[in-house]
Amino acid sequence: MRKNTHACYYSDYLQLDKLLGAQAMESEKHGHPAHDEMLFIVTHQAYELWFKQLLHELRSVMALMGDPVLDDRALATIVHRLKRFTVIQKLINEQISVLETMSPQDFLEFRDYLVPASGFQSVQFKELEIRLGLRRSQRTEADRQFFYSRLNEADRTYLLALEQQETLTCQLDRWLSRLPLLKFEGFAFWEHYRRGAQDMLDSDEAIIRQTFEGDSLTSQLDELDGTRARFQALFDDSHYQRLLAEGQLSLSHDAMMSALFINLYRDEPLFQLPFQLLTSLMEIDELFTAWRYRHVLMVQRMLGSKIGTGGSSGSDYLRRNTEANRLFRDLYAISTYLLPKHALPVLPDKVKKRLGFSLGGD
Amino acid sequence: MRKNTHACYYSDYLQLDKLLGAQAMESEKHGHPAHDEMLFIVTHQAYELWFKQLLHELRSVMALMGDPVLDDRALATIVHRLKRFTVIQKLINEQISVLETMSPQDFLEFRDYLVPASGFQSVQFKELEIRLGLRRSQRTEADRQFFYSRLNEADRTYLLALEQQETLTCQLDRWLSRLPLLKFEGFAFWEHYRRGAQDMLDSDEAIIRQTFEGDSLTSQLDELDGTRARFQALFDDSHYQRLLAEGQLSLSHDAMMSALFINLYRDEPLFQLPFQLLTSLMEIDELFTAWRYRHVLMVQRMLGSKIGTGGSSGSDYLRRNTEANRLFRDLYAISTYLLPKHALPVLPDKVKKRLGFSLGGD
Amino acid sequence: MRKNTHACYYSDYLQLDKLLGAQAMESEKHGHPAHDEMLFIVTHQAYELWFKQLLHELRSVMALMGDPVLDDRALATIVHRLKRFTVIQKLINEQISVLETMSPQDFLEFRDYLVPASGFQSVQFKELEIRLGLRRSQRTEADRQFFYSRLNEADRTYLLALEQQETLTCQLDRWLSRLPLLKFEGFAFWEHYRRGAQDMLDSDEAIIRQTFEGDSLTSQLDELDGTRARFQALFDDSHYQRLLAEGQLSLSHDAMMSALFINLYRDEPLFQLPFQLLTSLMEIDELFTAWRYRHVLMVQRMLGSKIGTGGSSGSDYLRRNTEANRLFRDLYAISTYLLPKHALPVLPDKVKKRLGFSLGGD
Amino acid sequence: MRKNTHACYYSDYLQLDKLLGAQAMESEKHGHPAHDEMLFIVTHQAYELWFKQLLHELRSVMALMGDPVLDDRALATIVHRLKRFTVIQKLINEQISVLETMSPQDFLEFRDYLVPASGFQSVQFKELEIRLGLRRSQRTEADRQFFYSRLNEADRTYLLALEQQETLTCQLDRWLSRLPLLKFEGFAFWEHYRRGAQDMLDSDEAIIRQTFEGDSLTSQLDELDGTRARFQALFDDSHYQRLLAEGQLSLSHDAMMSALFINLYRDEPLFQLPFQLLTSLMEIDELFTAWRYRHVLMVQRMLGSKIGTGGSSGSDYLRRNTEANRLFRDLYAISTYLLPKHALPVLPDKVKKRLGFSLGGD
Repeated sequence: MRKNTHACYYSDYLQLDKLLGAQAMESEKHGHPAHDEMLFIVTHQAYELWFKQLLHELRSVMALMGDPVLDDRALATIVHRLKRFTVIQKLINEQISVLETMSPQDFLEFRDYLVPASGFQSVQFKELEIRLGLRRSQRTEADRQFFYSRLNEADRTYLLALEQQETLTCQLDRWLSRLPLLKFEGFAFWEHYRRGAQDMLDSDEAIIRQTFEGDSLTSQLDELDGTRARFQALFDDSHYQRLLAEGQLSLSHDAMMSALFINLYRDEPLFQLPFQLLTSLMEIDELFTAWRYRHVLMVQRMLGSKIGTGGSSGSDYLRRNTEANRLFRDLYAISTYLLPKHALPVLPDKVKKRLGFSLGGD
Repeated sequence: MRKNTHACYYSDYLQLDKLLGAQAMESEKHGHPAHDEMLFIVTHQAYELWFKQLLHELRSVMALMGDPVLDDRALATIVHRLKRFTVIQKLINEQISVLETMSPQDFLEFRDYLVPASGFQSVQFKELEIRLGLRRSQRTEADRQFFYSRLNEADRTYLLALEQQETLTCQLDRWLSRLPLLKFEGFAFWEHYRRGAQDMLDSDEAIIRQTFEGDSLTSQLDELDGTRARFQALFDDSHYQRLLAEGQLSLSHDAMMSALFINLYRDEPLFQLPFQLLTSLMEIDELFTAWRYRHVLMVQRMLGSKIGTGGSSGSDYLRRNTEANRLFRDLYAISTYLLPKHALPVLPDKVKKRLGFSLGGD
Repeated sequence: MRKNTHACYYSDYLQLDKLLGAQAMESEKHGHPAHDEMLFIVTHQAYELWFKQLLHELRSVMALMGDPVLDDRALATIVHRLKRFTVIQKLINEQISVLETMSPQDFLEFRDYLVPASGFQSVQFKELEIRLGLRRSQRTEADRQFFYSRLNEADRTYLLALEQQETLTCQLDRWLSRLPLLKFEGFAFWEHYRRGAQDMLDSDEAIIRQTFEGDSLTSQLDELDGTRARFQALFDDSHYQRLLAEGQLSLSHDAMMSALFINLYRDEPLFQLPFQLLTSLMEIDELFTAWRYRHVLMVQRMLGSKIGTGGSSGSDYLRRNTEANRLFRDLYAISTYLLPKHALPVLPDKVKKRLGFSLGGD
Repeated sequence: MRKNTHACYYSDYLQLDKLLGAQAMESEKHGHPAHDEMLFIVTHQAYELWFKQLLHELRSVMALMGDPVLDDRALATIVHRLKRFTVIQKLINEQISVLETMSPQDFLEFRDYLVPASGFQSVQFKELEIRLGLRRSQRTEADRQFFYSRLNEADRTYLLALEQQETLTCQLDRWLSRLPLLKFEGFAFWEHYRRGAQDMLDSDEAIIRQTFEGDSLTSQLDELDGTRARFQALFDDSHYQRLLAEGQLSLSHDAMMSALFINLYRDEPLFQLPFQLLTSLMEIDELFTAWRYRHVLMVQRMLGSKIGTGGSSGSDYLRRNTEANRLFRDLYAISTYLLPKHALPVLPDKVKKRLGFSLGGD
């Protein structure tokens, strides 16, 4: 019935000969085929396929973010692709449950043949981290070691070059800093906000004094002082610069203020897309963190404190990495600064007009 | 730091050059690169990777099931691998949510380049169906057409040969028929069961008469008669053979009785593994059905009644297939025959002894 | 440490005495306590709690949709709450897996005590269906019977009155019809669209002729004719009215054209919220359908063709209901009418201006 | 049509009047109704309903575990109910995604009215922790404070009494210690095991020496020494008792050896149920940990470092709790001690016989 001879054929289109011919079990080569090594290979290959897709999305997002005039249409595309990014992350987080069907002993049947290969050698995953904005100084000592001495020359060179390029984090900072949100003549927003914040913190203090006494009261008030100080930094640039220098923050002051403004007015249709952009980035961060965390639990269940294929004790190693490689901490920090809606000034019409429909039209 | 020069390297072990070099977008070849075609390719390649793993598990299960003396240890391995099978199915069912991030219009950007390729040409998926036990006569007309005229020579020949081989369904029937559950001298189990069934159906009839009247009563009583007839077939072999001949059942009479017995005494530790085996097969069936169903919904949202890449109207086509390719209907039918525990006889000690610890030790 | 004597206390706030005192097992009253009846009660109570929340969201959405001047801010709130609606639906769909941990025999231990109660008597669920827009004529015969004769007087009266009120479907139709999308002077959009559609269908015909021959060709061309006819109805009001009268469509012609326009330009920032509104409604529909479907499978596994607590054969009964109670079929039908982006005219500036930022500013 | 006047009616059976009449919004009482407070109430009530069900399962499991002669049938029931426990946990972990649809600002609209109520005052959740085996000494300082000073008299008294009762952890220890796994005359299992362990550790040392050099080598060898020491404790009771005294372990030496034995021979049909029991407990632990962890992330996103309804800074507070309240650490530790199957002796027939079918038949 098929007449079109040059037509597309399913298995050719997907290059299934290559794809399905790429599973060679080391245990078989060594004469002791271990049934579950196939699962190990296929699972990791599936990860790498999805990493390729994540990079495809990330690169296209960065090409759009790099444009100095970022119109709302491009913003819509960016948000759409970052959301897809998170959907894929959710899928690969689920993949761990497949790997968990392998028993520790079934893994031990082929562990030794894989030494010293390690998932930490995934160049695509490291590329994702670097492009998103993870700096080497944020990596744990152990992760840095892998980076330098456990990759082959070509892989290391590739990644070192990447570290010199602009990251999504930088692009985000620049875009936020450029938004015309902060300079409305005659609209004393930040004055208003500062008073709202003070009221909220005073009310919190009253609640604490009413609820606690003794040592608990002292320690709760200490914490509150910390929160007050964090608010202070928003309004005092030299204070803010100090936190930047100490590495406690990484977004520039202007970018932080814009991000806060977007969060405060997230329900304005105008800010839907910018807010979704910020949210997607936080979700990406959370999902990679969840991925690392579930990995730690799995390795713990698999190996205890025995060494993994990379030659080092898997579980402690990974645990140290879980919280380390966080990317968008500053965006999380914004929650601290949110006020109830009733404490916010309504945006005056001229401000809305000034913003116009298009945020990018500065 | 790395001294071992012949050692395993992550990207070599996973053959990432092949794997990540196998994504060629047709839209790019035609000079109109469509961003989302990459997602389409990667998603389908991920499916095929997992199908390879599913076949790896299925083939190993069938090698064990083919052994005439199936001891409990082998049974434990079979159950373990079938459960893994279902965990993988759950993952690939989730994959649809990734594909759903592609908008209908983004799909239309490259749909035409893919004609007449179709997911129905996946040889691995057809192999899974055939090995599990799907017979050609059960396929819809449309699915049969694909089978014969839309596969290339090599693929068709391979699958036709497979259809001549023993299936898991056959192996299951043989294993169930061989279980020594049905021939206990002096233990009138089936007598007891028949009375229990009669009591339950009489009580159901009383409930219906108390609850309904008029036409509803008539129609409910008609349904109950159908259920009574289904019970009757259990005890009347010629009746049973007629249902087999009509294609309403496919398990042999002995196998059905064993499967029912296992279900009735599922809480006996002795029957844990056999019951889990039956349950896993039903779950495999359900998960493939859910997969087809979610696919229908997705194609509907994507194409409406427009034609798909295979050249035929996707959504109607698939819909007809959803319920058709069910594999283990008879196992579902068993629910009809279950009685409350208090209506079942306690297994006498000599029966337990006769069964022994090992079911396979007939 | 607690000083505030009038302060809120967790268990008082949540009225846990009422909440946790509302589980009375019938099997216990009858002197045969069945461990799993507690699960049955708690699961259904959890459903009802969530139904209350769904109604809370739905009523608030309808209060906003009822406003003739629906500004974008209200639209954002509506979309936010409908999305929450779907998140809750996903959760209650997962709840079925909890119920599935009950074995058929464990259920039989208390089934008889519950006769003739049935989940079809959930007034809150019926209220959800009615408010969303399900008309009695769409219900299956069996569902209608429950409605009239199996509810008590107060419940029936309440629901009958509800059926006289405006539904979300009506509100949606009115809102869509009112959008100023269809009357752009000098912008011959629909002319352009009609040509694009014709080109696509001609190209589809060429693909079919190239791919099929013989009977397959005939049947594929027949299907294509059906699709052509569906397009025709868009442009021919008398044809459209006929389909409405036949019940094949339910959205008014103007509403359908607006919905199509929104779908075609979904990537325009302007249409993000309207498109998300339409998508959320489709998702609500899909998730209720999935809920009914998983329920069918569960009841099948639990009872086979035996009767359920409602006195009628559960599984056949439910199956008939699965596809019946669909709400927003017309929104799905829109996929048929989508064209590739390159076949669409770019919206001229004056059209964008005419639309303004705010869709509601007609 | 309904004739049976004393019959069960859905809404009476579920006591929906009580259940659906138990949502009173504080914000409404204060004259500022906040739409999202309903979600907050319903979500927490759903948690409490499920906690009631979890307690129902846990109490029934403990009643069975308390029986000195625990036969396999009881074991099957225990495992079944613990698995249901985990299915419910998965559901309530998903519930967090519902709560996450509430924006920080929407929460701030009613936060102040709830002070000083806190989820830490859930008596049912604390009862679950206590019955499972969490000792007060394991709780964080902050959690202990809540326990003593933030509960009302009745709740505190109830929980203090509970702390005096036997826990599931104790029952588990007693059951494991009683298993006749460790005293097989003439079968030098532990000798064999000790040699296997030594071989594995020596091989690991060789791998490390081949893979690393310099400081890395030193630190990896240090870690390996730690692992060697952990193995040593298994065979040296005074060493083991010291770790117990230091709180590094909590299972008794005999119980630990039995748990290890079960893990080593988990693929034996004989050990399926015991292994599933251990696995379920670990999974319960993991799922509560995941629940606490997702809660931390949510509170962080909601409040930043502002105080929560309990009056103290939510996020830091919760974070300290995440890892603290772990219950079955020792079961995780077992992974360290697993050896590859080929390094294990095959169980001799007389040992299998000695074990008999029933593990409980000591």
